[in-house]
Amino acid sequence: MDIKTDTPVTVIGLGRMGQALAGAFLKAGHPTTVWNRTASKAAQLVSAGAQLAPTVDDALKASPLTVICVTDYPAMRQLLGGNDISLNGTTLINVTSGDSAQAREAARWAEGRGARYLDGAIMAVPPAIGTAEAVILHSGPQPDFEAHRPTLDALGTVSYLGADHGLASLYDVAGLAMMWSVLNAWLQGTALLKTAGVDAATYAPFARQIAAGVAEWLPGYAEQIDRGSFPAEVSALETDVQAMAHLIEESEAVGVNAELPKLIKAMADRGVAAGHGGEQYPVLIEEFAKPHVS
Amino acid sequence: MDIKTDTPVTVIGLGRMGQALAGAFLKAGHPTTVWNRTASKAAQLVSAGAQLAPTVDDALKASPLTVICVTDYPAMRQLLGGNDISLNGTTLINVTSGDSAQAREAARWAEGRGARYLDGAIMAVPPAIGTAEAVILHSGPQPDFEAHRPTLDALGTVSYLGADHGLASLYDVAGLAMMWSVLNAWLQGTALLKTAGVDAATYAPFARQIAAGVAEWLPGYAEQIDRGSFPAEVSALETDVQAMAHLIEESEAVGVNAELPKLIKAMADRGVAAGHGGEQYPVLIEEFAKPHVS
Repeated sequence: MDIKTDTPVTVIGLGRMGQALAGAFLKAGHPTTVWNRTASKAAQLVSAGAQLAPTVDDALKASPLTVICVTDYPAMRQLLGGNDISLNGTTLINVTSGDSAQAREAARWAEGRGARYLDGAIMAVPPAIGTAEAVILHSGPQPDFEAHRPTLDALGTVSYLGADHGLASLYDVAGLAMMWSVLNAWLQGTALLKTAGVDAATYAPFARQIAAGVAEWLPGYAEQIDRGSFPAEVSALETDVQAMAHLIEESEAVGVNAELPKLIKAMADRGVAAGHGGEQYPVLIEEFAKPHVS
Repeated sequence: MDIKTDTPVTVIGLGRMGQALAGAFLKAGHPTTVWNRTASKAAQLVSAGAQLAPTVDDALKASPLTVICVTDYPAMRQLLGGNDISLNGTTLINVTSGDSAQAREAARWAEGRGARYLDGAIMAVPPAIGTAEAVILHSGPQPDFEAHRPTLDALGTVSYLGADHGLASLYDVAGLAMMWSVLNAWLQGTALLKTAGVDAATYAPFARQIAAGVAEWLPGYAEQIDRGSFPAEVSALETDVQAMAHLIEESEAVGVNAELPKLIKAMADRGVAAGHGGEQYPVLIEEFAKPHVS
């Protein structure tokens, strides 16, 4: 334990998230070096024991591991790309938001300059950093992740996804799609029930139960996708489509937004039109897996 | 227990679902009377001990409770509306699919003819009927529900929603919206990860965890809606919108369908445009609660 928390770590970029990351490292006892373009943002961290590096190069040299948390990928390359900066031997974890292609490109760029590179995605808000609630995803070479895992554990629930640097970004946006979809479906239901005078607190436990229940089906449904075979064990898509029509009609009849119901039915209608009406819902992976040409 | 299962019950309409309902009543020991326009559909139930009534009126008279399971509300009224049919003193539970306005209208119609009326919604497929997995929602006068609850318990997990006859239909479609939304978000994520060679079985546990985790937020978020106050305790809508742009960009970059991501962002953009960028996600109830004029 003492050995682990002796490991120095550097955080570059001190926005709200960067400050939270550095704060969590400090709290766990790591000698923590920070750098930010506007040095004043480091003041609170310095008073909590952080070292403020005078240059990016000094910040990188201070620790075997540097976490970089800046606006985007171009900002990272601009910051670390100067001739006066050496990435040689550094392990860099970039938690900047971007897409999987940018992550893979950043990895090639950093590795080309002698760094070890992991891409990270933080599925948490700054105040959650340092608690188990903060899920932080990593992708890139597994030995580099494992070597620094004891340090990274200070940040929350860290997980390793695979060697492809693009994975952290893909899981991140996939998880966000799930988050917003659950919230939107709940808002759709809350709006529907509100028309009958049911308050949101009364409806919420029902929505929670359905969401959690359907979540349990996913591993089983995933097997259908991986097998590429979709027998209608529970329900056939053409039957689902009839119930989707009810959802649209009800939404329109009571005067709530019907765009989400319409999109649900449009996707299923396309599956039926493609000849999958007698198969089960996960067959729609074929529609989701290709661009829609309108 | 013996007293309860002595209670006679009638099922009218013997499609797959009607047959499953009658079968569950029989299995629980209830003297069960059935009727169907095509009498041959009753054969299996009769051999299992059901009584086939010669007319609808006979079927209604055989039991204090009749469950009707036909195509739609007009079909119910056509079937029960003849001059030779008395609904006087009958308790009718209609599990036909339709919308909340049709349910309320059917209640007025049935009550006008002397029946007690409950509207039901079955959130299950026929093979699940008779197991705890089958959730069956009821709305209408509570004393009528309570009087027949011991009989209804044979069908699955029965629940009572309130006196407004429209509630069963509204909860039903709201629950379906949640079901399809969780499935669609999972398909979106599965399609995204597939582009990096990740199979559906590998991704599914992650999707399950996110869906179940977000479901836990709903009761807390519901309080914001009921208070009509949306402080950005976790995240502000204008920050969410930036991550939504990443979801769209990533989907388009890897060649998967981007309609769901675009709808997510369109709803949030409207919330920001309405001046709610500094508030928290549930403020979007204002967008969901009104029709979209495109």
